[in-house]
Amino acid sequence: MRSRRTVDVPTLVREAREGSPRALGRLLTLVENAAPELREIMAALAPHTGRARIVGLTGSPGVGKSTSTSMLVSVLRRRDLRVGVLAVDPSSPFSGGALLGDRIRLVEHALDPQVYIRSMASRGHLGGLAWTTPQAIRVLDAAGCDVILVETVGVGQSEVEIAGLADTTIVLLAPGMGDGVQAAKAGILEIGDVFVVNKADREGAPATVRELRHMISLGDRTEPHLWRPPVLTTIADRGEGGDEVLEALDSHWAWLQEHGQLEERRRARAAGEVQALALEQLRSRMGSPTEGVLREVVDEVLAGRLDPYAAADRVVADLA
Amino acid sequence: MRSRRTVDVPTLVREAREGSPRALGRLLTLVENAAPELREIMAALAPHTGRARIVGLTGSPGVGKSTSTSMLVSVLRRRDLRVGVLAVDPSSPFSGGALLGDRIRLVEHALDPQVYIRSMASRGHLGGLAWTTPQAIRVLDAAGCDVILVETVGVGQSEVEIAGLADTTIVLLAPGMGDGVQAAKAGILEIGDVFVVNKADREGAPATVRELRHMISLGDRTEPHLWRPPVLTTIADRGEGGDEVLEALDSHWAWLQEHGQLEERRRARAAGEVQALALEQLRSRMGSPTEGVLREVVDEVLAGRLDPYAAADRVVADLA
Repeated sequence: MRSRRTVDVPTLVREAREGSPRALGRLLTLVENAAPELREIMAALAPHTGRARIVGLTGSPGVGKSTSTSMLVSVLRRRDLRVGVLAVDPSSPFSGGALLGDRIRLVEHALDPQVYIRSMASRGHLGGLAWTTPQAIRVLDAAGCDVILVETVGVGQSEVEIAGLADTTIVLLAPGMGDGVQAAKAGILEIGDVFVVNKADREGAPATVRELRHMISLGDRTEPHLWRPPVLTTIADRGEGGDEVLEALDSHWAWLQEHGQLEERRRARAAGEVQALALEQLRSRMGSPTEGVLREVVDEVLAGRLDPYAAADRVVADLA
Repeated sequence: MRSRRTVDVPTLVREAREGSPRALGRLLTLVENAAPELREIMAALAPHTGRARIVGLTGSPGVGKSTSTSMLVSVLRRRDLRVGVLAVDPSSPFSGGALLGDRIRLVEHALDPQVYIRSMASRGHLGGLAWTTPQAIRVLDAAGCDVILVETVGVGQSEVEIAGLADTTIVLLAPGMGDGVQAAKAGILEIGDVFVVNKADREGAPATVRELRHMISLGDRTEPHLWRPPVLTTIADRGEGGDEVLEALDSHWAWLQEHGQLEERRRARAAGEVQALALEQLRSRMGSPTEGVLREVVDEVLAGRLDPYAAADRVVADLA
């Protein structure tokens, strides 16, 4: 670790808002490192947030997430929109930084000043994605990104969490993955606003589409006001189908606004973020297992004289 | 969902302690469902906990976790020890219960009354494993299990969490998995107390062992009092190497006691458990995003008048 430089927050925020990728990168690094300046940074960003559309993109390894992200960036750029990409890797609790290994597809956008791409490891923070990603989204939002794509690999909770962060969640599948439809059964039907079967030139694509549509029709989404997630096909490495995905995103965006769902999703997201920060604050106040009330009650628990619930009651009472 | 029956906690706890698998299963279901009776159950169990040795077993899909667990159960049974097995699947946030798909190897122990096997989905609880597993361990511990094997698939954070729960963590690898050594680099070197290269009859096994030993020798574990994790080989589906693994577990157990590490690990585990319960209590006190202080501050955050940190301050102040 290098020694920390002093951070001139107002200048950094101004430069990021003026479009400096260096300033933007610096802010995101401060977010990733949970730097003490984050309070000041978030206060400075607050008035400039709330404009960007947040699109989540999730899928199992091998479905073509990077290629699809790259295709989406291309169609968004054709509309002259400013795009931020956060590639979140929740499987890397220990990694110190960006894992750009399979991000080669995104290199084509690397020189476009209207595209900002960043890989982030979620590093086992409390709540995983819940901690770092919303703040990274705030940074890109305040810096003037019109659309922020949050790409994450679908492993366990991460895809559920991403659905909580995004205005619209794209679930990506590929035919013949075997686990695709299995995964759908395991819960992604509930989180997808738009389903995309990528690699649609492969054998089995129509069957995957059919099965997905069937499963969606069986779901709870039958009330008239509820959104019916479309199932689209793409061949992302040839750039085919990107326009249709963007149209679906637009339709969903319109639906969100018409039915008050945008407000509702953003409220839930902000509440989750505030709660996570409040809990982290409370957690740090509880101190360490070797001092204070926590130490006392843990001694009792280890001796079998107190159960963990009664111990938790005492810890909570001590905070109040 | 069936309607809930009233739970006679004292009887259930007594029967579980007398060895009734039915009562044990019922208690674990109440844990999985975060039933309101848990407070009473944990209070009744508390005086009977702290005896069992907790052994974590983790590894990537395909390394032979089930087979290895089964082999370990067999060697432990030869010593006439009572064994509990918790197979935790952190990748199933939505699944309602046990996924016994690949647990066929464990069937050989199904009729042994001194072996209790349970699959659990961690279901996206706050903190994942941190929530349900410690309580399930308490149940098995109080029910008189001498050794509790907690098996989890290594995806992201789960293997780090399991290391926090166990007295001894076994990291399982297989030769020619490609990702084995990669995974090691990604962090499992830090969490393994005993490394086992399973499928040792496969090509590449000696190389995997050599590489692991080399990497361990490069690690931080060079001080005289630190444990040097052994690297063993097994062919679990032929039952080869189980005795050596058990010997390594015994050595580690002795080391833990000699160096005060057992006390330290158990203290950290209990503290984590108490903290998680206290935080959950505080979280539920914060109320919902549509009422009270949380609603107020979220309105301000959405309007850009408050940043999430300042909002969290207000939520915390309101709790105290």
